[in-house]
Amino acid sequence: MITQISPLGAMDLLSQIEVDRLKETSKGDLYRLFRNCSLAVLNSGSLTDNSKELLEKHSNFSVNVLRRERGIKLELVNPPTHAFVDGHIIRSIQANLFAVLRDILFVGEQITEKYADFDETDPSASAHMTNLVFTILRNARALRLDEDPNLIVCWGGHSIGAEEYLYSRRVGNQLGLRGLNICTGCGPGIMEGPMKGAAVGHAQQRYHQSRFLGITEPSIIAAEPPNPLVNELIIMPDIEKRLEAFVRLGHGIIIFPGGPGTAEELLYLLGILLNPENKDAEIPLILTGPKSAADYFYAMDEFIVATLGEEARKHYTIIIDDPEDVARRMKKAMAHVKEHRRQTGDAYSFNWGLKINHDLQVPFNPTHENMASLDLHKDRPVEKLAADLRRAFSGIVAGNVKESGIKAIEKHGRYILSGDPDIMQRMDKLLQSFVEQDRMKLPGGTAYEPCYEIHL
Amino acid sequence: MITQISPLGAMDLLSQIEVDRLKETSKGDLYRLFRNCSLAVLNSGSLTDNSKELLEKHSNFSVNVLRRERGIKLELVNPPTHAFVDGHIIRSIQANLFAVLRDILFVGEQITEKYADFDETDPSASAHMTNLVFTILRNARALRLDEDPNLIVCWGGHSIGAEEYLYSRRVGNQLGLRGLNICTGCGPGIMEGPMKGAAVGHAQQRYHQSRFLGITEPSIIAAEPPNPLVNELIIMPDIEKRLEAFVRLGHGIIIFPGGPGTAEELLYLLGILLNPENKDAEIPLILTGPKSAADYFYAMDEFIVATLGEEARKHYTIIIDDPEDVARRMKKAMAHVKEHRRQTGDAYSFNWGLKINHDLQVPFNPTHENMASLDLHKDRPVEKLAADLRRAFSGIVAGNVKESGIKAIEKHGRYILSGDPDIMQRMDKLLQSFVEQDRMKLPGGTAYEPCYEIHL
Amino acid sequence: MITQISPLGAMDLLSQIEVDRLKETSKGDLYRLFRNCSLAVLNSGSLTDNSKELLEKHSNFSVNVLRRERGIKLELVNPPTHAFVDGHIIRSIQANLFAVLRDILFVGEQITEKYADFDETDPSASAHMTNLVFTILRNARALRLDEDPNLIVCWGGHSIGAEEYLYSRRVGNQLGLRGLNICTGCGPGIMEGPMKGAAVGHAQQRYHQSRFLGITEPSIIAAEPPNPLVNELIIMPDIEKRLEAFVRLGHGIIIFPGGPGTAEELLYLLGILLNPENKDAEIPLILTGPKSAADYFYAMDEFIVATLGEEARKHYTIIIDDPEDVARRMKKAMAHVKEHRRQTGDAYSFNWGLKINHDLQVPFNPTHENMASLDLHKDRPVEKLAADLRRAFSGIVAGNVKESGIKAIEKHGRYILSGDPDIMQRMDKLLQSFVEQDRMKLPGGTAYEPCYEIHL
Amino acid sequence: MITQISPLGAMDLLSQIEVDRLKETSKGDLYRLFRNCSLAVLNSGSLTDNSKELLEKHSNFSVNVLRRERGIKLELVNPPTHAFVDGHIIRSIQANLFAVLRDILFVGEQITEKYADFDETDPSASAHMTNLVFTILRNARALRLDEDPNLIVCWGGHSIGAEEYLYSRRVGNQLGLRGLNICTGCGPGIMEGPMKGAAVGHAQQRYHQSRFLGITEPSIIAAEPPNPLVNELIIMPDIEKRLEAFVRLGHGIIIFPGGPGTAEELLYLLGILLNPENKDAEIPLILTGPKSAADYFYAMDEFIVATLGEEARKHYTIIIDDPEDVARRMKKAMAHVKEHRRQTGDAYSFNWGLKINHDLQVPFNPTHENMASLDLHKDRPVEKLAADLRRAFSGIVAGNVKESGIKAIEKHGRYILSGDPDIMQRMDKLLQSFVEQDRMKLPGGTAYEPCYEIHL
Repeated sequence: MITQISPLGAMDLLSQIEVDRLKETSKGDLYRLFRNCSLAVLNSGSLTDNSKELLEKHSNFSVNVLRRERGIKLELVNPPTHAFVDGHIIRSIQANLFAVLRDILFVGEQITEKYADFDETDPSASAHMTNLVFTILRNARALRLDEDPNLIVCWGGHSIGAEEYLYSRRVGNQLGLRGLNICTGCGPGIMEGPMKGAAVGHAQQRYHQSRFLGITEPSIIAAEPPNPLVNELIIMPDIEKRLEAFVRLGHGIIIFPGGPGTAEELLYLLGILLNPENKDAEIPLILTGPKSAADYFYAMDEFIVATLGEEARKHYTIIIDDPEDVARRMKKAMAHVKEHRRQTGDAYSFNWGLKINHDLQVPFNPTHENMASLDLHKDRPVEKLAADLRRAFSGIVAGNVKESGIKAIEKHGRYILSGDPDIMQRMDKLLQSFVEQDRMKLPGGTAYEPCYEIHL
Repeated sequence: MITQISPLGAMDLLSQIEVDRLKETSKGDLYRLFRNCSLAVLNSGSLTDNSKELLEKHSNFSVNVLRRERGIKLELVNPPTHAFVDGHIIRSIQANLFAVLRDILFVGEQITEKYADFDETDPSASAHMTNLVFTILRNARALRLDEDPNLIVCWGGHSIGAEEYLYSRRVGNQLGLRGLNICTGCGPGIMEGPMKGAAVGHAQQRYHQSRFLGITEPSIIAAEPPNPLVNELIIMPDIEKRLEAFVRLGHGIIIFPGGPGTAEELLYLLGILLNPENKDAEIPLILTGPKSAADYFYAMDEFIVATLGEEARKHYTIIIDDPEDVARRMKKAMAHVKEHRRQTGDAYSFNWGLKINHDLQVPFNPTHENMASLDLHKDRPVEKLAADLRRAFSGIVAGNVKESGIKAIEKHGRYILSGDPDIMQRMDKLLQSFVEQDRMKLPGGTAYEPCYEIHL
Repeated sequence: MITQISPLGAMDLLSQIEVDRLKETSKGDLYRLFRNCSLAVLNSGSLTDNSKELLEKHSNFSVNVLRRERGIKLELVNPPTHAFVDGHIIRSIQANLFAVLRDILFVGEQITEKYADFDETDPSASAHMTNLVFTILRNARALRLDEDPNLIVCWGGHSIGAEEYLYSRRVGNQLGLRGLNICTGCGPGIMEGPMKGAAVGHAQQRYHQSRFLGITEPSIIAAEPPNPLVNELIIMPDIEKRLEAFVRLGHGIIIFPGGPGTAEELLYLLGILLNPENKDAEIPLILTGPKSAADYFYAMDEFIVATLGEEARKHYTIIIDDPEDVARRMKKAMAHVKEHRRQTGDAYSFNWGLKINHDLQVPFNPTHENMASLDLHKDRPVEKLAADLRRAFSGIVAGNVKESGIKAIEKHGRYILSGDPDIMQRMDKLLQSFVEQDRMKLPGGTAYEPCYEIHL
Repeated sequence: MITQISPLGAMDLLSQIEVDRLKETSKGDLYRLFRNCSLAVLNSGSLTDNSKELLEKHSNFSVNVLRRERGIKLELVNPPTHAFVDGHIIRSIQANLFAVLRDILFVGEQITEKYADFDETDPSASAHMTNLVFTILRNARALRLDEDPNLIVCWGGHSIGAEEYLYSRRVGNQLGLRGLNICTGCGPGIMEGPMKGAAVGHAQQRYHQSRFLGITEPSIIAAEPPNPLVNELIIMPDIEKRLEAFVRLGHGIIIFPGGPGTAEELLYLLGILLNPENKDAEIPLILTGPKSAADYFYAMDEFIVATLGEEARKHYTIIIDDPEDVARRMKKAMAHVKEHRRQTGDAYSFNWGLKINHDLQVPFNPTHENMASLDLHKDRPVEKLAADLRRAFSGIVAGNVKESGIKAIEKHGRYILSGDPDIMQRMDKLLQSFVEQDRMKLPGGTAYEPCYEIHL
């Protein structure tokens, strides 16, 4: 089956040079990236979080960029059929395909041309990495000059139960009733619930500027394809830039129950907030869930305090089973965020003022060697320890659902993690609870097979 | 508590003469109508279907129209608090308040001035009644010239179980994915489910012209206040004009499980379709529900065939548990409706061509006397019998949930219905099944107390 | 030649009853009104101001309203060819045709139904006449709730020289640069110049809400067809309601040089402003023209003072040859108008607060008898004298360019005007100067033949 | 006087790195470019075409980019006062300032980063130069995917008489009546007239997508500042890229009377059309003017035929004094252009298919040496000769009105042009006629002093 898709959304004309870059026959792996992300988008709504499986199942899929009189078209060869209704592609999928094209092309061009000689591991590269995050978001028209602070980042698991899902919808509804927009990691579960709730809230308020941002990355998009509510899809080049995009775009952050990815996100954020240079930062942070999730948050809280100290606790509020309270606090906090940006002359739409250390920015490649050499000891500045803890959880996410991670585990066995015994024991316990609560991967298929071993 | 509300939606300036008409102190009962409908709208989301209870609970509520430099404002005295979020009125409620004002005022003016000497019981009044329905809809800007046939009327109960509710959402989602809009009676249950589903379908298709029409009437709005999805609220003066609005506006009709109101709607429609003058009419009609509702539809089908004959069955299709099939057929039927209108030179937005007999148009006042004298015998033209059966169910709805009906039952006891024994037995059985399935009223409170007696 | 025209602008569906009312074969003269106004609109841009000539020239023109699937169409039989470009009707003409339909139909319906028993000569009718003006403007969607006071009425002649025309454009440009909108009598000359200038001013300011209102009436539209800039055409039923529409809609008034029609407008306005009940009214009024028009204004000023007294002079400012000053003052005055409306609780979009006496509202039919019996003496309240002077000039306009007036003059000879000798001499002198300056009618054809005689 | 200006139009956020690039203290001459172009825009409407004079007069003007919470602001120090109305900047000027910022920054970045090592004189650079033109236009959002071919480029002089100006307005009006958009060099005279006429035509047709593109370059913008109708200002880096932008964006070209700049434009276009590779190109080209300009066109025609041969004549049509015919032909030609693009798979919004030789693309620096060494002989391929003739006229424009050219002439005296005696004689005669007809520079000041000498 071959079908042609017209642009939807803000895609411009492409030059011949740009089209050539995306050809299957072009050198470099831009085509492979583009093809795999396109396939992931076309799989929106399918119930698997195993990237590798998905990619293998559709090995005969390909995509070509065609130049036409009104711009470009995409030619899809053997696309998944559930992306279509009565033979017509679903328009949010259509728009997301062109968002993929836009971002892959822009990042490809930036990196091949502008940042060609750019070494991300060089500490002086920090400002340039932030600049790259900024230009990707600007190119995606995600920076809105005319909006007051109103974007709430919602983090949490893709594999959660019905009660947690419904709770996240109720919170989303209360946020939506207060004219707040939602930004998530773009997939199912907690990445969808708040958007659904907010969509109804927005409808109740006749709020027509609904923004449901999904920020993803090529290595995770296949495992967590965009949910149908996402109306602005952005593909950052790697998890570190994705996390930076979240914290620079968002005006408040809510963490719902989740698995290792959620732990990664919280540790990343604490790594920033514990940095003394950010002591005046205004980032309202709430951890919330239904009554049944209370233990989850207390366990997480205990882990944080035990590893990063009592100080860390000041940066977040835990609210159990009270969606209205969560939303009311966020709404109030928006006024403070606005005032703070105004006073510091910072942009409403991009938090330039936040200091993000180089060790949180530089891409972490979770090889077995890199995982084994993480420095998980207490005798370090807390923000440094937070950064390495973040990496540990990041690696576990990769081993669970990312294509490269799954392959590495298949080849070399489990990751070995070691460090300070107290930290390692607590980490083991936390991960064990994720396993028990089905937070590691979508249930179904065989029982979860850990991709890591904790060595005390 | 006193608060002032600005207009939202298409409300224009009012003249002093118009404002005076709505004053509490004005003669006539326009103010009472306006006040009660406003109160009903402010009660959106509350869980009661007892109009009388609601009106009594908020007896200290009042509303005043104020003229201001940018048009008018509404002053609300002691409004229900759940219409507000953090002290601000929910904007869909705000918009619906002004829709109430618009329709009450327009109908009031039409009836006091234009139709002042107009006798609705005079058979020659038929064309003028249709004209009144037309002008109310036009004044509400519900007739869109630039749209192809795409409006699906969904009928069904306000008191239904979770499974039927979710099924109606799934059907709504499939309709929404096909760019179809929804029109219902504007309350909860089946009046909400298809809208919720379609809202997500529309979001998936980036369809921004979503129309969720709720058509109600003053005597029912308090029992079935507008659900939050309704973005066009229209208040017709009585149930007969409301039913006529449904069939002239809608391009296809889906009937979900429901109680006596749903039976009334189906009988009204069959009363039209069985009229020989409508033999070429194009009104696709589907009866659908989840597997658990199969028996419900077979019972209804049996009742129809037994009372109105095998011929009636030709006008509808029953589809069990297949939302995609329902939506696909409706979408296909839209092309036929369009073609039919084009060929007959009829408007896409108002079905002038449909013949509606005077006995289906003239308001039926369900007094005990009128109910007792319904002619429920088989030796009449089927469309006549259908019209009287419609009235019988209409009276039962009034006795269950409308203020005037409840009061009449309190005062005079149950309605007596009699007629052809076969018809009456079947009717009794059907009504009995509604009682058993909680379809008469919202469950909660005491057991259902019938407002009728069937005499064989 | 027969052609069909689709609606443009806010025309809704029509019912069969409404369409029937506009049929050529219908009783009543609604069809003739509709047909003649349509013809006038189709003649936009032609260079004649003789209604009778125009109507006779196109005696084989007719127009029919057809009902179609997307609403109505107009069928034009033998329309003037210069309304078309390459066979397609010019869209402003198309829109104006539907404005004609809208207003003729609405007024027809109001008058036949709502105001059927309404006697305009009854003094108690005043409030109802204002209400009629209001509802016509509201039905035409000319009352914008979201706009601050910004509508400048520009009065002046249709037959003026190039210098005065260019001056009015310069004033219009300065008004447009300050975000002000323009309302005129909709024809050529001064009715066009300020709109052209403002259009460029709006373009310079990227102001996209340009409103160029043309307010006309059936008896003058053929002599002064809408100029191409008019983007909101409104047809009031007679000159008195047209004048009332000007002063209730407009927020400031500029009078440019003109002939008897302009004198009528100024006298009408002074008749209002000299009314003691309007002593607090805020209606900024400027008389302005190029240097060459200075004598014109001094003569007008002298006439006013001599007939209505020194007091009248307080209500206007004469500015010679300074467009920027004119515009700057009007812009400043808008703030005062806004504040005044706010304080008195009056609408920004309709000046309810202004008292307009019944003798300025009741239609004046300029028969020879009525003209002869005007009471032009000084021993009356000035606002009464102003009202009768207004009628005298109104009659002269009719005798010059309106169909009925021209016919009456052909039949009965000149109007006879008499009164206080001083007034009559000054009037004679003023009219004589209009003749000399070609302000009576468009030059071309034979010399101007007066339609009046002044008897001392 | 210091004032701050907010963005208008599509300006995004800027990063610190970008803002730094535009600082007065930054190395490189980006600031000077930005400052001078900004000054030129602020001078819109002033009556001088001497860049040097203008820049010297406002030597104390400066501009700074400030970062603020809603993006950036421009701080203007000592701006020309006539850019303001009652203290507020005119919004078209405001928008154009941000267009300047956008283009200067984009081109600066492209050239410093992407094309850093790029040698424009290398023949292989042709595709990259076209790509640069494309990306500048795309970044300016000038390439509209949803539009059919409708953009008419109008070339002609900035210094012309009232009759030619009015004629260009009449042509513009006819183009506007046919829904065609206008693109010019953005200054006064013929660069304004067609836009004014089309603006009225668009108003008559209620056409709201009016595009009035002004394409300029830093070295000419001060002499020919944007006229107030321009609603899309684009600044190309040099005259060659500006000319390429005209022919790739435009769908038809009309040449009105003008001076050496107009001759340059015609020769550039003939240089392309005479290229055998473009034998199938669809570029409708009309030369037109009022009766009084007939001799002008016959002289130009004669010069073309004498130098480039009879063949050249096939590519254009001369129409004298018939605006309607000009517009009707252009409108018809649009259908052919559309069909041609569709058949060749070329974009409607950018004419990729046109072959433009490297010698027409590479910037020509009109030094005395380069001017003297132009090869103006007949024994060359006509497209080569056309290219060098183009350069000769380009140099004369520079010597007349560009800052660098004026300075060069002040320092080194007149340019010397020599070549084939027949060509040189005809060129002398043509230039002499430009002088006599005041087409070289705006009249006023002293008599025109030639900046060239023709040596036979």
